[in-house]
Amino acid sequence: MAQQQEFRTTQRPPLDLSHHFSQTTKNRLSSNVKGLYKWFQLPGMQNVAGGLPHESYFPYDTLEAAAARPSRFDEPKSSKGKSNKPAEWHVTVPKIQDTTDILKKIDLSTALQYGTAEGYPPLATFIRKFARDHLHPNVPYAEGPEIIMTCGSTDGLAKAVEALTNPWNKTKDWIRDKEGVLFEEFAYMNAVQTVEPRGLNVVTVGVDADGMRASGPGGLADVLENWDFSKGKRPHLMYTVTLGQNPTGSTTSIERRKEIYTLCQRYDIIIIEDEPYWNLQFPSSRKHAAKYRGEAAVQADLFNRNYNAHGRSSGYEFLDSLVPSFLSIDVDGRVVRLDTFSKTIAPGCRLGWITAQPAIVERILRITEVSTQQPSGFVQVMVAQLLLQQQGSPATARKSADKEGLGWTLDGWVQWLAGLRDAYERRVHDMCSVLEEGRTVAIDRPAAHRRSSSLDSWSVINKVPMYEFDWPLAGMFLWVKIRYDTHPLLEIYGAEKVCTALWFFLLKKPFLILSAPGTMFAPTEAIRRGRAFQYIRLCFAPMAEDAVTDISQHFVAGCRAFWQLENFDDIEELDDSVMPEKMGLQMC
Amino acid sequence: MAQQQEFRTTQRPPLDLSHHFSQTTKNRLSSNVKGLYKWFQLPGMQNVAGGLPHESYFPYDTLEAAAARPSRFDEPKSSKGKSNKPAEWHVTVPKIQDTTDILKKIDLSTALQYGTAEGYPPLATFIRKFARDHLHPNVPYAEGPEIIMTCGSTDGLAKAVEALTNPWNKTKDWIRDKEGVLFEEFAYMNAVQTVEPRGLNVVTVGVDADGMRASGPGGLADVLENWDFSKGKRPHLMYTVTLGQNPTGSTTSIERRKEIYTLCQRYDIIIIEDEPYWNLQFPSSRKHAAKYRGEAAVQADLFNRNYNAHGRSSGYEFLDSLVPSFLSIDVDGRVVRLDTFSKTIAPGCRLGWITAQPAIVERILRITEVSTQQPSGFVQVMVAQLLLQQQGSPATARKSADKEGLGWTLDGWVQWLAGLRDAYERRVHDMCSVLEEGRTVAIDRPAAHRRSSSLDSWSVINKVPMYEFDWPLAGMFLWVKIRYDTHPLLEIYGAEKVCTALWFFLLKKPFLILSAPGTMFAPTEAIRRGRAFQYIRLCFAPMAEDAVTDISQHFVAGCRAFWQLENFDDIEELDDSVMPEKMGLQMC
Repeated sequence: MAQQQEFRTTQRPPLDLSHHFSQTTKNRLSSNVKGLYKWFQLPGMQNVAGGLPHESYFPYDTLEAAAARPSRFDEPKSSKGKSNKPAEWHVTVPKIQDTTDILKKIDLSTALQYGTAEGYPPLATFIRKFARDHLHPNVPYAEGPEIIMTCGSTDGLAKAVEALTNPWNKTKDWIRDKEGVLFEEFAYMNAVQTVEPRGLNVVTVGVDADGMRASGPGGLADVLENWDFSKGKRPHLMYTVTLGQNPTGSTTSIERRKEIYTLCQRYDIIIIEDEPYWNLQFPSSRKHAAKYRGEAAVQADLFNRNYNAHGRSSGYEFLDSLVPSFLSIDVDGRVVRLDTFSKTIAPGCRLGWITAQPAIVERILRITEVSTQQPSGFVQVMVAQLLLQQQGSPATARKSADKEGLGWTLDGWVQWLAGLRDAYERRVHDMCSVLEEGRTVAIDRPAAHRRSSSLDSWSVINKVPMYEFDWPLAGMFLWVKIRYDTHPLLEIYGAEKVCTALWFFLLKKPFLILSAPGTMFAPTEAIRRGRAFQYIRLCFAPMAEDAVTDISQHFVAGCRAFWQLENFDDIEELDDSVMPEKMGLQMC
Repeated sequence: MAQQQEFRTTQRPPLDLSHHFSQTTKNRLSSNVKGLYKWFQLPGMQNVAGGLPHESYFPYDTLEAAAARPSRFDEPKSSKGKSNKPAEWHVTVPKIQDTTDILKKIDLSTALQYGTAEGYPPLATFIRKFARDHLHPNVPYAEGPEIIMTCGSTDGLAKAVEALTNPWNKTKDWIRDKEGVLFEEFAYMNAVQTVEPRGLNVVTVGVDADGMRASGPGGLADVLENWDFSKGKRPHLMYTVTLGQNPTGSTTSIERRKEIYTLCQRYDIIIIEDEPYWNLQFPSSRKHAAKYRGEAAVQADLFNRNYNAHGRSSGYEFLDSLVPSFLSIDVDGRVVRLDTFSKTIAPGCRLGWITAQPAIVERILRITEVSTQQPSGFVQVMVAQLLLQQQGSPATARKSADKEGLGWTLDGWVQWLAGLRDAYERRVHDMCSVLEEGRTVAIDRPAAHRRSSSLDSWSVINKVPMYEFDWPLAGMFLWVKIRYDTHPLLEIYGAEKVCTALWFFLLKKPFLILSAPGTMFAPTEAIRRGRAFQYIRLCFAPMAEDAVTDISQHFVAGCRAFWQLENFDDIEELDDSVMPEKMGLQMC
């Protein structure tokens, strides 16, 4: 413990990065509400200042839920993929919880009232401790990072972009003022659409299985060193998903992180690290892949390295086993990390948090006060009570003094995260196994249109790969590269039409597979027109657990049938093809 | 009905106001997600496209609440201001509701999943119908307005401002490009802080008891006609609270609305109408005020005029009795109305909606997709089920086929709104009566520092007014003007110190009244330094219903004691006074 203390206090504070703030963000007033709190807190003080409705006018007298125990994922499952046992626990939020401790006062009189932009105190305090002491126990700058609750990571990103970029207008602004944001070459388009309408340059960096590439052509160093200033400023902001990147599924190793971070220091870049899949890391993927492909063919092991050996343990074996955040190497305070409950509780929460150096969080707090104000009290209080329900609350008072009615606590939260990981690890195994085993197809009819020598070569072998992929080490996605070059009709239709036809063909009976075409993840027109079409993103999350294998088999069967087609005449959508990316489909 | 039909179809469509859109908003891509929905909806389609976690991984199996019946406000009260009866109704949202009708499918599998930016379909559909057919049945443009759910009106305002203003940077932009927004001369500072950091001009318009003034010095016509272009563009946007304006409590009559609207047409201004208090209108205030002051002294009657006589009835007597929105005279589609559940359900909802012409709502939809995405599913589903719970839901299935387990429906919602109004009407009566009766104080000691002849005149009468106010016709606030000119110590301390001292004095025992100083509502430095200090805003909402009189008496007693003071020596805060507006306190 003494060592830990020293670890904290010998560090330097984060850099002043306020030159990155947008003009609007610089203009925002500072706030010092706390000065007035002394009046609020005087016993008997009658607050007739704020326009706060009295809680007796709220039509809800309790909020309640039937909820899971954190051990749900460890329990035996029925054949439907649901727990055999019914929900074992009733969460109850009373109208008024009689305590003056605002960290234990979890009730509707506080949660459904106006609150603070940091978040609901019991929940924000829990998350702050979780983020600082457990999830990122080794942030290298003095005093450590701050957190603020968000309405989910899309909201978090919007606020970070508002804080850190100036809009640019081509009709009146100088090109030298045009800012830019770095993205992986395939990216979550909603993030791109957050910055692009501001008139900013969307700058892409190459990706491999190890995440964003630091070196080589199209890698980060190349992009920054050879920046063409006639396009605008060199990018000062990076958006990256480092764990189970969406859509490629790649995971950024700690070595790669250090290379990227060093470049971001050199070029003064702030890193927005968006990690919705951070707890979904799959150490077994490498082993499974090696079983099929041999040790030499799979990437190096990212796990079980005890990254925290040189610093503090998270206090949990599960958390220690995870590839750590950029925050863990962020000596300058240039990392803004986005977290969300969307994948750990439910997307409809619209609840998450930002972790960053205090000065950046303070500016985002100011933005929050004049936009979302705070996440909905309904979700904040239900999550707070799930985690923190006390012995004395009405629901537990009726019961005996056992632990039945108590909240998950931090231990339960980590147990839930680990159980969720295990469940997704089974899914990735199920889907990848089927795709691995069904990768090739035998072409057993005359190749009517084969002419090139390369095609001739496999017409002899008669068995060709239909696609290739890496076993994802994290996340929810399989990024499948279509081997259009092995399709018998390539020469008639061309690569792009073959890939588009496959997407439409899979939609049809009996396959009925709605996948995400790679073009939906192309941040720029060049990438869209380039090689994006040859990818399909499959997600192993949306179906029931026991349906993953079956759906994966449908996908393989669809590919197989597609490779047997004599023509695409029945795929009438191919002519006036309206691919989802042209429809602006927002994909999660 | 035939007449109503005709009323709709002979109208012209709203004007194209897209020249008001900010550059960023113009840049946003259009979206046509609906094209892909045909695939989503095919029976048996396996969606492996979206990164949607399966609902079996959500730790909540139900969400429930003990809730009020809409008749709660009509029931007898206990002495504590609470209903005698316990909560009479249990709301239950099941994990899965078995129906394919998305308007009736109110369950966690949909509400806690990713949703659409318009809002949760059952709720957004209810609100759309409520807004179009009942709240604003006479919107004069063809096809009527559209709605989109927001995370409360602060979020709605932020999105409207993002859609309709371009940030301006004094270090690089031309003054001719600087945009401006019109506000009432006293305003909700959070709204001012939404636009000011964008570098825009905050332009104030005078207010009287009838709302924003259209004519006369400092009225809207004066401000616009005599606009000084050396300050920037003439304002193209107005922010206004027309019903129970915050903080002045003024309510804009329909005649005044027409004058203002005509000016907004002439100068091409978009009106953002923020109405958190729209259902809290108090027809009895005028009558009560007249009892004390005589008929001649009170403003004209705004109510009982059957404004909808020339158009369609809302279908509800209560809604017809309310002063209608700017939307009801908005032939051009230049009104953006903000609504919120903060005052009708609870502030912690962070839930509201925008009503505007479809093209404006469409752009706000695009902003929503890359920021909040949607309000939290937790609040959306709880409000949806409160209003719409069906016979077939699990909670009601257990019961007999009576109406016990059913949602409020539209009738219940309007009944609740009316009941809430009645409750606030009792509050405004209680507070105003006490203040009315306690307005004057007898100065019964020698006036040590009286010198001027005007002061001498009342030293004879010996009874002076301490404050003045109008009985509010709507809202939550009393805007109290301090009659510092009658205070015996005026000449020693000056007007501003007298007012500031009163604010601090009221905070002290035995009064313990925390009120909102008028300076907190001054949008500009000129108004802040001018006459803002002479006001105090009192809110009759935050206390229990039966405490309003007592607290009001505390206020009067505090004023009375303050007028008896021989000096301000005991008000030590006066010297290094840190008034809340300097602390940036965010007031609701």
